[in-house]
Amino acid sequence: MGVVSTIKSFATRDVRFKMPEGSGSDAVHTDPEYAYAVTLLETEDHVGSGSAFTIGAGNDIVADLAGRLAERLLRIGGRDIEEIMARFGTVQKALADDPQLRWLGPHKGAIHLALASVTNAAFDLWARQRGMPLWQLLLSLDDAEVVALLDLSWIEDVLSPRDALDLLARERATRDARVGILEKGYPGYDTSIGWFGYSDDLVASNARLAVKQGFRAMKLKVGSADLENDLRRFQLVRDEVGEDVLLMVDANQQWKWPEVERACEAFAERGAYWIEEPTHPDDVLGHQRLAVTLRKRHVRLALGEHVSHRVLFKNFIQAGAVDIVQVDALRVAGVSEFLAVSMMARIAGLSVIPHVGDMGQIHQHLVLFNHIGLGLPAEMLEYIPHLSAHFEAPAVVKDGCYITPTAAGSGLALRETCDV
Amino acid sequence: MGVVSTIKSFATRDVRFKMPEGSGSDAVHTDPEYAYAVTLLETEDHVGSGSAFTIGAGNDIVADLAGRLAERLLRIGGRDIEEIMARFGTVQKALADDPQLRWLGPHKGAIHLALASVTNAAFDLWARQRGMPLWQLLLSLDDAEVVALLDLSWIEDVLSPRDALDLLARERATRDARVGILEKGYPGYDTSIGWFGYSDDLVASNARLAVKQGFRAMKLKVGSADLENDLRRFQLVRDEVGEDVLLMVDANQQWKWPEVERACEAFAERGAYWIEEPTHPDDVLGHQRLAVTLRKRHVRLALGEHVSHRVLFKNFIQAGAVDIVQVDALRVAGVSEFLAVSMMARIAGLSVIPHVGDMGQIHQHLVLFNHIGLGLPAEMLEYIPHLSAHFEAPAVVKDGCYITPTAAGSGLALRETCDV
Repeated sequence: MGVVSTIKSFATRDVRFKMPEGSGSDAVHTDPEYAYAVTLLETEDHVGSGSAFTIGAGNDIVADLAGRLAERLLRIGGRDIEEIMARFGTVQKALADDPQLRWLGPHKGAIHLALASVTNAAFDLWARQRGMPLWQLLLSLDDAEVVALLDLSWIEDVLSPRDALDLLARERATRDARVGILEKGYPGYDTSIGWFGYSDDLVASNARLAVKQGFRAMKLKVGSADLENDLRRFQLVRDEVGEDVLLMVDANQQWKWPEVERACEAFAERGAYWIEEPTHPDDVLGHQRLAVTLRKRHVRLALGEHVSHRVLFKNFIQAGAVDIVQVDALRVAGVSEFLAVSMMARIAGLSVIPHVGDMGQIHQHLVLFNHIGLGLPAEMLEYIPHLSAHFEAPAVVKDGCYITPTAAGSGLALRETCDV
Repeated sequence: MGVVSTIKSFATRDVRFKMPEGSGSDAVHTDPEYAYAVTLLETEDHVGSGSAFTIGAGNDIVADLAGRLAERLLRIGGRDIEEIMARFGTVQKALADDPQLRWLGPHKGAIHLALASVTNAAFDLWARQRGMPLWQLLLSLDDAEVVALLDLSWIEDVLSPRDALDLLARERATRDARVGILEKGYPGYDTSIGWFGYSDDLVASNARLAVKQGFRAMKLKVGSADLENDLRRFQLVRDEVGEDVLLMVDANQQWKWPEVERACEAFAERGAYWIEEPTHPDDVLGHQRLAVTLRKRHVRLALGEHVSHRVLFKNFIQAGAVDIVQVDALRVAGVSEFLAVSMMARIAGLSVIPHVGDMGQIHQHLVLFNHIGLGLPAEMLEYIPHLSAHFEAPAVVKDGCYITPTAAGSGLALRETCDV
């Protein structure tokens, strides 16, 4: 690939978007400003664009750290994007375990968000150089090439390189049975019917609209100080959409002990399809207790939006503390760690239904790979429309399904940052 | 207290120290530059000084974030240090759960280190205003005042405000039996005999010197790629100091699976007193497995240096995944979260032997409170001498014991940052 795959320069950007009144608000994030800490990697012909997601303040910090990691990427990994990606797992480990910056984590917080941004930029650039949408690039790799993308350190007890190779080989044999998803489109679910700050009337009309647009599942924000009011809003949506639509609730970590048990019980009784982030995102054993109780009622526990890295996900999975793995490639260390977590979930027989800090732009690629390449069921992908106009190639959702993207790259590029 | 307790201004500093060749080095942090992200809070008469510890690069980021949190402290908590401390738990929760900055954690990484710095500055200022060393101030509070310092959210299932009050009241009844520690001095242990980068000769002479200085316990850095060499160095120290001195080993998270099991087994066989940070600091269930095996050999598992917050500590304690709780007030959210974690450990019957990112300056106060106020055993406190000359009132260690500090404040003030 020679000169054309040489990275000439990099840059970072702090990009923030004002949200429409009440949109994006939840029990914890009462006043969000959706923001991307963007890393740009530039070759002669292409600009690779990667992001981490934040909710406003501090986005500059993540962008600053991403710049330091991008500099280290080129110093350690070299400047040829093909050479970098041929051993990305090793390169990423060297970035994550920088002997000094590591103290700011390890593998969590602002420094890990920065690693997500840099990692995603590398994958985006790679796909653009190869002229393929990311899902297609990932499916075009052989098993060893996929495993070389991953840093499996500290999770070898459940996912060794050998385990990963075995999984990929086994699922390769049945890929043909699953490629139909590319034509059908990947089902979406609507997260935006009931943000915390929305009035009852708006929630009701949004719920009706979502059904009309073809969504068969939707999510309501709960976790207010008034559980009765949360339950009332849940019933309000149920009355609008009927029994055939799946309704999920999301408490955004707001419930403490022992109220979290009462609240989960109440929503389980009313038939919530899943309960999301009921309490503190690092409380493995707390979620284990909740999950055991919820499972008896056939209600799923969903979490991952704030789970920082693969080792914590390993613990959640080992403990039976999660049913729906909501890993987000803009929270963990990008595409690479997203794939490692997806593999652990696949082996444990769990669902992967990502949280979409990216508004689904990159996750539409990743769930296609997860389904076809890893054999994970094609369940549904969160859909949030608010930033659509800002992406260079916005995800297209029709009749409640994501239409398979065909443009080269990962979909993360923003119109605001097309130039380095 | 009126005007004199009003905070007039705040500032932050990024202070770094070059280390002597090889000092401070371990299996992961191969080239450390000990650094403090300092917050200064100034009244008419006093400057309160708080720190978070880092290992060089990124210290500026923590200082930057500390400035943002200090601004928020004054906006939310007001400017009167006595009023702030009368409800510090509530104020701290408001800082930790800033609706936007929270995304950078929550409760971990750079943003949480910044909270440590601001929190510690508030405690230091408070003690200076009261004209007392921090240990004495903490012991002078009534039980309700202590509990008002704590943010117990998300750990109420093991430490409710009621539980904390009960613990304090019970232990108050027997305080007199424990105040003798103030005269005797608190035993130290020597961490600096065997940094990773030290030669065999230096390790041997350091070990001899430590015994001569009165230390009855010391720690060796292990976790190299060559386990046999680590074991050889352990034996080398044992040969120097004999069987009566306690020898601990610290792998600084370096071991992966399954080698971590072999390595723990090998050091258990050789009589290590504890094994510290054998693997990834967030791997609760991994440490649980190791701890169960080690306990059968009467070897303790020590960790906490990199455990970010009380909820993860709760999990480690609930899972029986830790014996020696090494919580560090310069890693968790300062004095306040340190006390909450200490209380959980006390209730579970575990030891608290802090990691000293502060070189023991503030922890000498905190272990005195833990012993006298919480009834935790007075075991030993880590001692690291390298930065002694830089503190305004350096900790004094004689005959292997910390001499009880008498100067007002927490001991964190650096000579380099005495002025705002």
